[in-house]
Order: sequence, then structure tokens, then C-alpha cells
Amino acid sequence: MSAETLPVVQPAVPRPDPADPVFAAHAGGKLEVVPRRPLRDRRDLSLAYTPGVADVSRAIAAHPDLLDVYTGRGNTVAVVSDGTAVLGLGDVGPGAALPVMEGKAMLFKHFAGIDAVPICLDTTDVHEIVDTVARLAPTFGGINLEDISAPRCFEIERLLQERLDLPVFHDDQHGTAVVALAALRGAATVVGKDVETLRVVVSGAGAAGVAIADILHLTGVLDVVVVDSRGIVETGRDLPAHKLRLARQTNPRRLRGGLAEAMRGADAFIGVSGGTVPEPVVASMADAAIVLALANPTPEVAPEVAHRHAAVVGTGRSDLPNQINNVLAFPGIFRGALDVRARRISEGMTLAAAAAIAACVPVPTADRIVPSVFDEAVAPAVAAAVAAAARAEGLARTP
Amino acid sequence: MSAETLPVVQPAVPRPDPADPVFAAHAGGKLEVVPRRPLRDRRDLSLAYTPGVADVSRAIAAHPDLLDVYTGRGNTVAVVSDGTAVLGLGDVGPGAALPVMEGKAMLFKHFAGIDAVPICLDTTDVHEIVDTVARLAPTFGGINLEDISAPRCFEIERLLQERLDLPVFHDDQHGTAVVALAALRGAATVVGKDVETLRVVVSGAGAAGVAIADILHLTGVLDVVVVDSRGIVETGRDLPAHKLRLARQTNPRRLRGGLAEAMRGADAFIGVSGGTVPEPVVASMADAAIVLALANPTPEVAPEVAHRHAAVVGTGRSDLPNQINNVLAFPGIFRGALDVRARRISEGMTLAAAAAIAACVPVPTADRIVPSVFDEAVAPAVAAAVAAAARAEGLARTP
Repeated sequence: MSAETLPVVQPAVPRPDPADPVFAAHAGGKLEVVPRRPLRDRRDLSLAYTPGVADVSRAIAAHPDLLDVYTGRGNTVAVVSDGTAVLGLGDVGPGAALPVMEGKAMLFKHFAGIDAVPICLDTTDVHEIVDTVARLAPTFGGINLEDISAPRCFEIERLLQERLDLPVFHDDQHGTAVVALAALRGAATVVGKDVETLRVVVSGAGAAGVAIADILHLTGVLDVVVVDSRGIVETGRDLPAHKLRLARQTNPRRLRGGLAEAMRGADAFIGVSGGTVPEPVVASMADAAIVLALANPTPEVAPEVAHRHAAVVGTGRSDLPNQINNVLAFPGIFRGALDVRARRISEGMTLAAAAAIAACVPVPTADRIVPSVFDEAVAPAVAAAVAAAARAEGLARTP
Repeated sequence: MSAETLPVVQPAVPRPDPADPVFAAHAGGKLEVVPRRPLRDRRDLSLAYTPGVADVSRAIAAHPDLLDVYTGRGNTVAVVSDGTAVLGLGDVGPGAALPVMEGKAMLFKHFAGIDAVPICLDTTDVHEIVDTVARLAPTFGGINLEDISAPRCFEIERLLQERLDLPVFHDDQHGTAVVALAALRGAATVVGKDVETLRVVVSGAGAAGVAIADILHLTGVLDVVVVDSRGIVETGRDLPAHKLRLARQTNPRRLRGGLAEAMRGADAFIGVSGGTVPEPVVASMADAAIVLALANPTPEVAPEVAHRHAAVVGTGRSDLPNQINNVLAFPGIFRGALDVRARRISEGMTLAAAAAIAACVPVPTADRIVPSVFDEAVAPAVAAAVAAAARAEGLARTP
């Protein structure tokens, strides 16, 4: 069990006040499933249900490609969680994960017109999760995995991708990696450095940290050092398989030690770990440093500390500039993938998404390295870039 | 494999014309998943998603009873099918079943305000279906099984009911049984006979036929004879377990033979089999006979033939009087069960539903033995009766 999934301590959580605005906004849940067309009379009923629907079933049975034309499947995504790594809370279980999945589904609809269905699973067994989700495939055009603890999430995603011929995307990995890369691009432009030559420290080697290290590698960033709760992830340590792979791919200067050793002279810090970075460690970074402290609600570097030592600061917080949130990525990524009925979401498609997000801010500034999460132009731009990448890679089923 | 699930013959089904009104009504599917409240600005986002949602997750983790208060689970039903017995089409597979499940979900929302999610499964194995559905339970307040072939449907329903502490309801069985009983009550009133003393022939020993025989037994109808494709279901035949149980419970006069022997002198015919009843057989029924020929779109007794020999005729057809359709039952049954967070749907609750539907037509006539499927008073009346029955049986979690 990794650091992200330590059991949740419940220090006598009181029953909520129903008048609390947060709880009032959740009463009865946050989603509705509604008919797309009205059901007014016998004629409507005979078209949408019996006897008409039998013609549609018969047509789909004879021509399976019609499934995505005459049902909602091609626009429907399952948001799947087992509740083992929910937000910063840890293993709260599938029921307590449901409000998060409902929120995610709201965002899918709001930003990308995608019908998303929360699916919280009463199992944490890797193979049971894979079997269950694979059996749901006739209903869904894509699978968004969410808040599943590392390292289980890596195997679950891989097994599902092997088994299913449709987009399977663990947002905590790749969505986070895409927005982190987009933010790093914007910040690098502001400080006048090349992304490829940055020395980058990634704090956290869970789902997000691994995926960020991978996307930086793909992008050609040569000097990435990953730090977990025990220090720099390097080959001299006794590491589980997924971290050993990471150790081999990163840390070209063969650093050993902890966060302090990693941060000395670093150009960029990307935090996806929680925890706190001491001010002297932040101060030891290179000139014109970039601090992306994404832990929510408490960034790894307090914003006022970061601003004393870094040229560009981004966080996950909505009350500060440079909010770096997955909502910039996942709606457009799935929109693009569904639009071309992509067979999967490739590395090329995620790189295209990051570039498209960065391009939404043509002239980044220290206070604006990524677009606003409320910029409704982002998802369509991401979707177009992702669809084009899918076509270029031969992963698109429809033009 | 029973008669209802013979493999589908696909005699060169042509690709549909997109302008055909039925297909136009299905383009892009029939459902949408939409936010229940608007997402206008940062404040809305912070309440419904991060950071607010973390408080809700934490509260549910500490107080699991809040799951049904602050998520949509308590108002959400999975409409689950494996596609093995779809309408009259047979085993068309899970994809071709999806339009039917979408239609069902529309009806759930329209008539009962229930958010229903189609779940079409890529497996026909009884235990895989049970495991899969059981693992979805944290997301759903109830499970509506649909279009699963007999006899598998009996075991799947039983195993899920044993495993889950929530309503699991195979509509093809119990929904059909409820509306058939309601119609029989109305028809009996019209012809001035007592339901309990009717001689009833049920044609079909699949999901619907078995459930109808069971609900008639519960109701106290003493003389029920079930006929399948090989004749009267009776203990002298070599029968599978579910039909042997039926043979022991029915046929008190120990009839043998076929439909002709069963129908001679019968007061009521309930057809859920397809096939055709020859006119002389219809003519051999008792005076003031009742014919409920529910096969869709072609009733087992042609309506004009039925009217020559029977006092009351009902069918599943929307273009004739006395349309007997499950939509009279399932929305209200689930509404009532969800309203009191019932642990299951009991026999008492289904009997209450049938009585409530019948009571919606205080003075039945030959042309009106059940309410219209568009009578919006039916579902609330059924819901109230079902909730009351759940309370009376101690199955309600909330008052």
C-alpha cells in the first residue's frame, strides 16, 4: 500500500448541517438521467419504445457499427472508482467516492457534452475490477478510471487497455500529467527557458507522479528527478517494479538522498504528493524557478513562500492565479477520442492535448500560464487536437 | 435454452433509413446525463467539486447512511440486461439490447422521476452476471433486471436478492405478473366472476408465465393451468426444475394434453408466449370469457377472433383498448421501494401494486379494465401502495 492510500483516520466527523452550502449543493445527488426527446403521447412511445425499438435492436444486431449511431453509447463514459485513493482522503470506500464521481460527471457534461455515469465498485481486487469493467463495455464508449490507488491503478489500466478496444484513461495519471506539462510549457515560456533542458523535480511517485515523469520523458525533458516519501527514486534503492522502471528512466545525474538534494539547482518543482517543502529547500532552486504545487487543498509549497523564491507559481487552488486542474484536460481528451471513435488514447493524443491547452494562452505571463478552468474554448481545442492525433496515428474509426 | 431464447434469424436486415421516424427518434441515443444544478462559476465548482466535495466524501465515510442523502444513489436504478431475451427478438446480444434499456430508462424518469442507467453486460454466465451486478451496488439504489432468458433469469434474480440488501426486480417476470393480475381483476369485475374461482390458462412457461402463475397462486386463484410449447405443464412430463415446481403448484384437475385440453371451459386466457391460438380453441372457453393476449406486436389471439368469443379482450398493443403494459407497474413499484429505502421488493409489495393499478379504474368496463399507460396518476398510486406494504412488512428503512 503506497503513501497515497494510508487508511483514513476519521476523527469523529460530525453529521453535517443540511443548510451548509456544500451539503445543500449535494442533496439528492448532482446528476439526473433524462430523456433526450419528449415523451408526450402514444406516438412518441411507439417510436422510442415498443414496437419501434424492436426495429432498432434488429438493425444493431445485424449491423453492429450502428450501436454508436442509434444509442447513446458513443457519447457515454463510465467514471469508475473503487474509492481507494479519493482526493486527499485516501481509502474512503466506493460509497464515499460517489460524490466525487458525480462531480466528475457534471464536468464531463458541462465542458464536453459527454454523458458520464459514475460507477463505484464494491471490490478492490485488481482482476475483479478489470472483469467487471470489461463486462460493462457494451454500454460505454469510454472508461475514465478515477481515484484508484497506486500501484494497482497501473495494472488495472493496462489490463483494461489490452482487453478493450476503446479509450481507457486513468485521469489521476494522464489527466494530471497533461495539465502539468501544459503548465510547465507556459511557465518555461515566461521564464525564457526551453522545456527540454529544464531540471525538473517531481514530488510524489504515485499515479500522478509516475505519469508526469513519463510524459516529461516523452516530451524530451532529459533531467527529471522523482522523489517519494523515502527520498529520491533511484536504482540503488529496493523498489517495487513500477518505481524501479521510473528510477531507470529518470535521475540522469545519479542523485541520491532526499528532496533537499533533488531540489538544489532545480528549474522546476511539480508537487503531486501532499507534504510540505521547507522554505530553504525552495530557496535552493535555480534562478527563475517554477513551482507547481498541485496538492489540494494545501499546496506543498505555501504560495507566499513560493513567490519569495520562484518566478512562476501554480497550484490546484481556485482562489489563486494559475489553477492547474485536470478539468482543463479530460473533457476535451474524451470528446476528441469519442468524436473519432478512437480505439484507445495514445501517448501522442495526450501530448497533443497538453500542447493544445498550452496554445490556449498564446502569450503566457507569470499570472497566466494556463487558461482558466472556465474558458469554454479549451475543451473544443483539446478535442480537435486529440482527434487529429488519433487520425494521424490510425486510431480513428470514423473520420 | 427455452423457446423464448431461440437464436435470432437475421434474414438480411437492411441498413436503416436515417429519416425513418423510428431511427430518427433513436439518433444519438435516448438519454442524457445532466447536472441537477447549474455550474456557473468558481463558487458552484467549489461547492459541487473540489474542494467542497471532500467534505461530503468524508461525511459519507463516517456516516454511511448519508450516501442516499447526498448522492443520487437512492434515486438511481440500474437497468441490467445481457441481451439474451430482448422483446420478441430473442438473443440479440447486449449491444442490440441497449436501445430497449434506454427506452426503459426514459419511462422510469418520465413516470416516476427515477434516474435509470442502462447496463448491458458482455457476458451470459449466471455467476459472472451476479458478481458484476453485485459489485455495482454502491452506485445504485435498485436493480431492474430486463430481457434475460429463462431459466437463467430465475437464478440470477435469486442470487442477487440473497447477496444485496436492496430491491432486485426482474421486470419481465414480476412487472408482467403485476399488470396481468391487475387486468384480470378488472376483467373479472366486468364479467361478474370472482378472481379466486376463475379457471385460468397461462400460455408460456418462461419468465413471464412462471411469474404470472406464482402471483395468481399468491392471490388465491385455485385453478391455474400453464401450457408451454409442448403442452400442459404437468407432473407426468419430464420437466426442468422450475417447471416441475410450477407443475406441482398448478393444474389441480390433473389435466394432460395441449392448449386445446387446457382451454376447454376456461374462464380466462393469459398469453405470454407468442404463437397463435386457433379459433375453435378460443370458442371452447366458458361463457363470458376473458382473453388477455399479451404477445407483442402479434397477440396470440387475433383481436377480432377474440371479440367473437370473449367478453373482455386485452392485448399489449397501443392501438387497441385495454393495453396491458409493464409501464403501468415498474415505475411506481421502484418509486415506492426507493421512497422508503426498502430492503427488497416482496410478494406483498407486488400484490399491493396490482391492487393499486386495478383501483385506478374504480368501475371497469369491457373497454377499460386497466388505466391508460399515459395516466400519470398510476405511478404515484402504485408507489404509495408499495411503500405502505414495505412499511407493513418491516422492509422499509425510512418511514
